[in-house]
Amino acid sequence: MTSSFWFDEEVTPDLSMRMRLKTLTFDEQSDFQRVQVIETAEFGTTLVLDGKTQSAKVDEYVYHECLVHPAMLLHGNPKRVYIGGGGELATARECLKHTSVAEVVMVDLDGMVVDVCKKELPSWNAGSTEDPRLDLRIGDARSYLLEESSGTFDVVVLDISDPIEAGPAVHLYTQEFYELVAKKLNPGGVLVTQSGPAGLINHTECFGAIHQTLKMAFPCVVPYSVTIPSFGSDWGFNVATTLATDAKAVRERKVEDLDAAIAAKVSGDLQHYDGQSHLCMFNLIKTVRDGIAAETRVITEANPVFMY
Amino acid sequence: MTSSFWFDEEVTPDLSMRMRLKTLTFDEQSDFQRVQVIETAEFGTTLVLDGKTQSAKVDEYVYHECLVHPAMLLHGNPKRVYIGGGGELATARECLKHTSVAEVVMVDLDGMVVDVCKKELPSWNAGSTEDPRLDLRIGDARSYLLEESSGTFDVVVLDISDPIEAGPAVHLYTQEFYELVAKKLNPGGVLVTQSGPAGLINHTECFGAIHQTLKMAFPCVVPYSVTIPSFGSDWGFNVATTLATDAKAVRERKVEDLDAAIAAKVSGDLQHYDGQSHLCMFNLIKTVRDGIAAETRVITEANPVFMY
Amino acid sequence: MTSSFWFDEEVTPDLSMRMRLKTLTFDEQSDFQRVQVIETAEFGTTLVLDGKTQSAKVDEYVYHECLVHPAMLLHGNPKRVYIGGGGELATARECLKHTSVAEVVMVDLDGMVVDVCKKELPSWNAGSTEDPRLDLRIGDARSYLLEESSGTFDVVVLDISDPIEAGPAVHLYTQEFYELVAKKLNPGGVLVTQSGPAGLINHTECFGAIHQTLKMAFPCVVPYSVTIPSFGSDWGFNVATTLATDAKAVRERKVEDLDAAIAAKVSGDLQHYDGQSHLCMFNLIKTVRDGIAAETRVITEANPVFMY
Amino acid sequence: MTSSFWFDEEVTPDLSMRMRLKTLTFDEQSDFQRVQVIETAEFGTTLVLDGKTQSAKVDEYVYHECLVHPAMLLHGNPKRVYIGGGGELATARECLKHTSVAEVVMVDLDGMVVDVCKKELPSWNAGSTEDPRLDLRIGDARSYLLEESSGTFDVVVLDISDPIEAGPAVHLYTQEFYELVAKKLNPGGVLVTQSGPAGLINHTECFGAIHQTLKMAFPCVVPYSVTIPSFGSDWGFNVATTLATDAKAVRERKVEDLDAAIAAKVSGDLQHYDGQSHLCMFNLIKTVRDGIAAETRVITEANPVFMY
Repeated sequence: MTSSFWFDEEVTPDLSMRMRLKTLTFDEQSDFQRVQVIETAEFGTTLVLDGKTQSAKVDEYVYHECLVHPAMLLHGNPKRVYIGGGGELATARECLKHTSVAEVVMVDLDGMVVDVCKKELPSWNAGSTEDPRLDLRIGDARSYLLEESSGTFDVVVLDISDPIEAGPAVHLYTQEFYELVAKKLNPGGVLVTQSGPAGLINHTECFGAIHQTLKMAFPCVVPYSVTIPSFGSDWGFNVATTLATDAKAVRERKVEDLDAAIAAKVSGDLQHYDGQSHLCMFNLIKTVRDGIAAETRVITEANPVFMY
Repeated sequence: MTSSFWFDEEVTPDLSMRMRLKTLTFDEQSDFQRVQVIETAEFGTTLVLDGKTQSAKVDEYVYHECLVHPAMLLHGNPKRVYIGGGGELATARECLKHTSVAEVVMVDLDGMVVDVCKKELPSWNAGSTEDPRLDLRIGDARSYLLEESSGTFDVVVLDISDPIEAGPAVHLYTQEFYELVAKKLNPGGVLVTQSGPAGLINHTECFGAIHQTLKMAFPCVVPYSVTIPSFGSDWGFNVATTLATDAKAVRERKVEDLDAAIAAKVSGDLQHYDGQSHLCMFNLIKTVRDGIAAETRVITEANPVFMY
Repeated sequence: MTSSFWFDEEVTPDLSMRMRLKTLTFDEQSDFQRVQVIETAEFGTTLVLDGKTQSAKVDEYVYHECLVHPAMLLHGNPKRVYIGGGGELATARECLKHTSVAEVVMVDLDGMVVDVCKKELPSWNAGSTEDPRLDLRIGDARSYLLEESSGTFDVVVLDISDPIEAGPAVHLYTQEFYELVAKKLNPGGVLVTQSGPAGLINHTECFGAIHQTLKMAFPCVVPYSVTIPSFGSDWGFNVATTLATDAKAVRERKVEDLDAAIAAKVSGDLQHYDGQSHLCMFNLIKTVRDGIAAETRVITEANPVFMY
Repeated sequence: MTSSFWFDEEVTPDLSMRMRLKTLTFDEQSDFQRVQVIETAEFGTTLVLDGKTQSAKVDEYVYHECLVHPAMLLHGNPKRVYIGGGGELATARECLKHTSVAEVVMVDLDGMVVDVCKKELPSWNAGSTEDPRLDLRIGDARSYLLEESSGTFDVVVLDISDPIEAGPAVHLYTQEFYELVAKKLNPGGVLVTQSGPAGLINHTECFGAIHQTLKMAFPCVVPYSVTIPSFGSDWGFNVATTLATDAKAVRERKVEDLDAAIAAKVSGDLQHYDGQSHLCMFNLIKTVRDGIAAETRVITEANPVFMY
């Protein structure tokens, strides 16, 4: 007779991932959400917010490098960066690898998340918390950016939870918000946002809607994705610039050129992002491209879009 | 999207119980076994040894009262009791409720189990650890009883893990051991042992074999069972006496007589065991009775019987 | 890499049974419910209505013998029997074993269930469908009994689905219905109804409420239960008589007397029900007895009680 | 109370996919393997061999287009194609879309698989079974190719089960076999083989070993992968040519050129494969590239490699 412990996370109502559970280290309700730190045998230590995997030790580098570096390199010379969310501090860690960066302002809603990540996920934030360039604040990312922060930014990175009904991040996926962000960006500024699942079976949840919404506020928006095994799915991102950049040129960027740019501008090694990974990420498979092209929803305060 | 945590325990290879998991409080390997204290939503705090539920907060009283009181009341006036195993200290707790008892010697193999139960399962052992009548020792229950203990006993209670291949308790289910126990009992002495699953679909694992083996060493052996929800099954016990008692009289004991005996001899209330519960427990359903009658295996050192 | 098929049935929201699935033979929506015939490795062919196990090959004899024989033998000489529900035809099979019986009128709501059981579960109804004493009708069990059936009955057996909100059987568990049944019974008549889960952790769902409700309509009501492994729980029944019978005498009926009555009145062997099984079934464990005694709900059309 | 049916397929020992099961249509043991046709709510009708998903209605086009078209277009003008395996007939369907093709010889080991796919998966083989260019045979793909087939081939497609110990396909992944295939290819001939899981967490199972083994027999071998949701993983392929082609040129093939080649050479629309999908598939993420580069195993008859 045997027994076993499992973490079961739904990908869709008809499909879930069953992960062997090793420990349940932390489990508390913050003012905003349920915060858990667990360890699965497959993915290692994992941050789970409101029952949903945020990042896991085994593949968090894929998620965080994909979120940060395409935007930073598309800009080319970012000095001032704003991170909305990013509680694991791994997004800050990646931003701070860019030698051009003078200041990273990061605003996360939930102090409990930031505290528990500092304590339980030390490898996630290696080097970032002590870096004097990081200005870490607890508060509302939208209010701070639009009302409190002084000056403008070169890159805005939105590392926030999915747009779930009653979730805290819903207002950070709307046309109204994106238009305000555009005004806080310097000329040539870049915004990147995580954009939900982007796989064959779930890309229609919100990936395309976020893309179409961003296009209301930015002249060039490029969607991309990468497989995150601990998410059980390909995952989507959208990067947008205030310049009328050619999306095709972004997608088909030469491998050697991008590798050279990374070598010149990023200190330390990247584990995931390079010229070939870029081609993989930015050239979506046909079904997903077709889905984005067919998307008609634009997310506004009056017409929100919610994920499963 | 939702996620959930589960403790999955096999009842048979084709059937398992899925229990919603709340916490994983303790998880260490002792010298003898894997020791875990968990909490499930249905059964509360639970001691799990080598992946198998030993007792759970919600129904541990059923298991421990069923193990202890029928033997104690069958004896009628037990003064000296020996407990083999019993790490939760709840078996001792029940023995010590009998006002006739002057001494309970308890020997459990695994000090880690005893320590973690004292710390994590305080309600299991309420009152027993401070009772001066309890002589608690860490060691081999068989060796201690047969080689080290002085004197003889009125009742021997075997609260040990199931006979699993390579498990520590295998030698405590053999004809050889039972014959030695019989010699350590006073005249009129009683032995009781937990005896594995006793349900319709799993009573043939070892319940009958333990019964038939005890009959090699004792003139009267009576099997009984009770449903333990956290075990996912009816659970079996065998009580044996050195007197040629009439098993039918034990099974059909009058409700009023037993209720009166409990009132006279047990201090404090019992939550489970009384005259009607006795009739329920000692009158097995026909399929299980037939299975015990058809059982031909006798467990010896040379011919062990192992549970699934 | 391995894969497996499972039938997962909730016992409570925090506990489910996971059964290895072998086949999904039949799966259709009738006018009243979803009707499935499946095969699990542990329990064999199983009838599932609206996602809930009704009876399984391995232990259907326990359920059906427990439902039928205590009521029939409590009556002593039943000639005319009414079965409400009973689609598997196994309840009819057990009633027809009583040599005194001249007529069994059975009314099941769902012709699809009756048809699929005849075809897929032949061992369930062995002998009953060809027996000329059986008058099998498709229709509403309540309407037929109260409005269409001529004459009165000695025994009424309610083999119906649980009282689930929006389920078809809700009106067959009310005080109003029981009072009407009492009028359709001959002097000395007996009613028995399946009464939902009766285990330590789930007896408060409806077992006690059905008991208290029956007491509004009958002078003597006796609750009893048996473990049904394929239900994952002890299961409850209530038997009620129009005579002021002594419940204690029913519970503690002498083993020999009951065995003799069965031998005299029942043709063919019973696999489960006999004198000892009766003592096991009718003497509930203390926790469940206490729960029934503490129950204050009476089920009426105005105040229904729904199971989980 | 609710119940549900599940198909649980392990991705690794610590991770499995739980798919809601709708039907179990076919389940028989052939001379070679267990053959099942099931339907899951997420992926639709699915062929499962020895407990492992082979292809599913929702995403079979991704798998079969990825397997066939890169090899066919790398060749440029294939006239005679050999398919080893391919029981669903979907690989043949894709090959026959190439207007240059005069003959497709397909040899699958298991007639039961071919028969059940023809009957239960009609959309998989739409058009292929009636196409006079298809020469479908039941037998051993290795023996037939090497001993019985006359002439040589332009493209060899290996659509076979994974290299599992005691599985039928183990000999179709060895250096010895690949060397023999190379001799059966015309000048400029191309071989492609499915190559097992290629995700971040499972690419080290066999993807790299198959790649390194092919390099013993072919001057140019290019690995690629695509996410197959019903496999729960990125999936790997290796395409090899008898010409000393530049792998980098294959990987970075211009989108417009490939789109034009497809338009010119393939009749009917492709749902998945085009220029951008090619860039996504052929540019592996860095971790997987590093894993392939570090792979030292070469699979031979004497030193087989088995997947989990």
